[in-house]
Amino acid sequence: MTPYELIQSKRDGRALPAAELTELLQGYARGAVPDYQMAALCMAVFFRGLSPDELRAWTLAMLRSGDALDLSGIQGPAVDKHSTGGVGDKVSLVLAPLVAACGVRVPMISGRGLGHTGGTLDKLSALPGLRTDLSLAEMRDVVAETGLCFAGQTESLAPADRRLYALRDVTATVDSIPLIASSILSKKLAEDLDGLVLDVKVGSGAFMKRREDARALARTLVDLARALGCPAVAWLTDMDAPLGRTVGNALELEEAVEVLRGRGPADVRELTLALGAEMLCLAGVAEDAAAAGPVLEAALGEGRALDRLRAVVRRQGGDPDALERPLPAAPERTDLPAHADGVVAGIDTEALGRAAVLLGAGRLRAEDRIDPGVGFTLLRRRGESVRQGEPLLAVHHRPGADLDEVLARIRGAYRLAAEAGPPPPLMLERLEAGR
Amino acid sequence: MTPYELIQSKRDGRALPAAELTELLQGYARGAVPDYQMAALCMAVFFRGLSPDELRAWTLAMLRSGDALDLSGIQGPAVDKHSTGGVGDKVSLVLAPLVAACGVRVPMISGRGLGHTGGTLDKLSALPGLRTDLSLAEMRDVVAETGLCFAGQTESLAPADRRLYALRDVTATVDSIPLIASSILSKKLAEDLDGLVLDVKVGSGAFMKRREDARALARTLVDLARALGCPAVAWLTDMDAPLGRTVGNALELEEAVEVLRGRGPADVRELTLALGAEMLCLAGVAEDAAAAGPVLEAALGEGRALDRLRAVVRRQGGDPDALERPLPAAPERTDLPAHADGVVAGIDTEALGRAAVLLGAGRLRAEDRIDPGVGFTLLRRRGESVRQGEPLLAVHHRPGADLDEVLARIRGAYRLAAEAGPPPPLMLERLEAGR
Repeated sequence: MTPYELIQSKRDGRALPAAELTELLQGYARGAVPDYQMAALCMAVFFRGLSPDELRAWTLAMLRSGDALDLSGIQGPAVDKHSTGGVGDKVSLVLAPLVAACGVRVPMISGRGLGHTGGTLDKLSALPGLRTDLSLAEMRDVVAETGLCFAGQTESLAPADRRLYALRDVTATVDSIPLIASSILSKKLAEDLDGLVLDVKVGSGAFMKRREDARALARTLVDLARALGCPAVAWLTDMDAPLGRTVGNALELEEAVEVLRGRGPADVRELTLALGAEMLCLAGVAEDAAAAGPVLEAALGEGRALDRLRAVVRRQGGDPDALERPLPAAPERTDLPAHADGVVAGIDTEALGRAAVLLGAGRLRAEDRIDPGVGFTLLRRRGESVRQGEPLLAVHHRPGADLDEVLARIRGAYRLAAEAGPPPPLMLERLEAGR
Repeated sequence: MTPYELIQSKRDGRALPAAELTELLQGYARGAVPDYQMAALCMAVFFRGLSPDELRAWTLAMLRSGDALDLSGIQGPAVDKHSTGGVGDKVSLVLAPLVAACGVRVPMISGRGLGHTGGTLDKLSALPGLRTDLSLAEMRDVVAETGLCFAGQTESLAPADRRLYALRDVTATVDSIPLIASSILSKKLAEDLDGLVLDVKVGSGAFMKRREDARALARTLVDLARALGCPAVAWLTDMDAPLGRTVGNALELEEAVEVLRGRGPADVRELTLALGAEMLCLAGVAEDAAAAGPVLEAALGEGRALDRLRAVVRRQGGDPDALERPLPAAPERTDLPAHADGVVAGIDTEALGRAAVLLGAGRLRAEDRIDPGVGFTLLRRRGESVRQGEPLLAVHHRPGADLDEVLARIRGAYRLAAEAGPPPPLMLERLEAGR
């Protein structure tokens, strides 16, 4: 079938044969299929979806369009975690060294911040000298030595996905569940994993605002991972408020180190332990979550998780002692006072994330440079009360920064009320692959 | 709104503001909007459609992306006919000079054959020397002198449509009723018309195989033309069999001249007179179809219609005396015999058209050259009986042509039966703009 016929078939709701999809995506990866045909196909997929067989073929073709990590010969199971993205989510920075400290390999390939959400690579960029642009061979070596790695997507990893993602980003075809799922898994399954935990965020700071959409994505992800031979578990978790007290790259890295020291915000700790337990179970290191808990607590409490972070930072060119000192932060602080007495009833978390991007903690355009030192400290979180004039949030910024728009957005994001119900649970719903 | 936001809005079923659509299509015409964004938008339009307001803005923007014919100062009303394309349809070659002979200007801008269908420009190419690549100024002059012209689309006429049509052709977004309607009318309304008659073909040889699809297209076309200030009438006409007895460019031109001489096949004559009557009514030259009939019959009978064809051929560089002689035809003839006794119960007219393309009467690729001399003469038409071994159809071809595939396709296209009901009427249904 020609690309034209494949577009037409999908448009008209007919099934696309796996071999034809493979050929199409390989053709796209090497530039033989033009962007305009893939754009039309992606929009047809937006409307018609992909069957499980089509999705499996699509994902495999993207996976096989490039190279993959090879962990053979390295002792122990390999398990990773993927989050669909949120605001203030520094869990990976805690989770990867923690799980590695429990005897599981965590070959973590992460992304930069996307839209209003932060990215693990950007947070790590707050550490001077640390390199994340590792080749696949370097990742393997780092994992072999330290039990984990923190790396960015390489040029050779799932190139069909890289090209397609850039196209979807400018053709309004990003928010299609099969296209999201195939993009995530074509990269994650190149990590040679024995298991994968998916943190699917739901709420105002997530890409999926509605529970049913997040559930559909989670269901697609776990079933697709299983069909591709990788056991997976997904959690829907609350992203109706930022995670932890900080938003911004150096600030979040510091908060993550606090959690590794056994301190830090309860929600970051809770999410890390819950996802860590799933990872230990998938790895076969723990029988169940109840058994995993003490193993994780011990690794935190005895400082072994922090030691792992220090080891991987050193191995990737950073200075582990920098983790013991305050990271280079923006020198100025401006507080936003509450305009009335009340309780923080809600935070428009996407709006808060966009304010952070505007401040320089993220990118408006792909080519923008971030400023690792800027960000927010939430002085009042959801459910906390405040009196008029007391600070809600501190903005950390450069001298002379124009904060009018940033402060206006934050002010608009906070919703104060006379009273507020209890916040929702953090861990909303668990899904595993159907049998 | 950015192109991204327009794609997203259409995708999600929201209305696109007219001013934004205009800007988008102008941007596309000048190359500022990339093909991949328009491809995604066209696929979203395929699924979501366009509202009457959106369709009007879309069509106007394409119309205004280029130059238009200006017939001001030329005496008399201007009316044209557009057909959605069929097999053996040589009506334009008769109709334009006939209606011009009745005092109406017919500035006919036509296309080449598309897919399995023939095109007026290709049929005219059988006349040596005739030029159809007229500038808008030349069209105006030819219409002023002869009452009509036969021209191809110029570079400057609706360039947004030309670019978009080529894109739709490779992204499986051709068969969307609003996109078809806007493409047709953005070109036809550049002809400075006082009225337009639309011949919407239905059946095995048409792009619309089903009556309800053809009716929906016809309805969209007449309403859109009216919204753009051009009175229009549409007829659904039968294309379940080829029109006339010939398929192929020189053969069809000769058959058209026969009709202009008052002879020729009854169906070509019937369709020409019916569409001609509508054109005279739209032009205000006749009160109704009953009044138009004798006017048209007289122009045919007195040879004035043929004189007009001779005049326009001479004016456009051709030799009118060539119309009096057999045109240069392919020298060889091979007859296809019937494999059994029977009545021709049906002809897969698209298959027959594709066989003609394969023979060289049309193009498989845009850059192919056609052979004006090749084609078919139908020796048995729908409803006619044949005895085994008697010829169904004559193939006119070059010496040494490989006819196996062509003959196999024709054989497959003819359906013989013990008996056949009466053929359907040619003129199926009339639509005019709602009031």
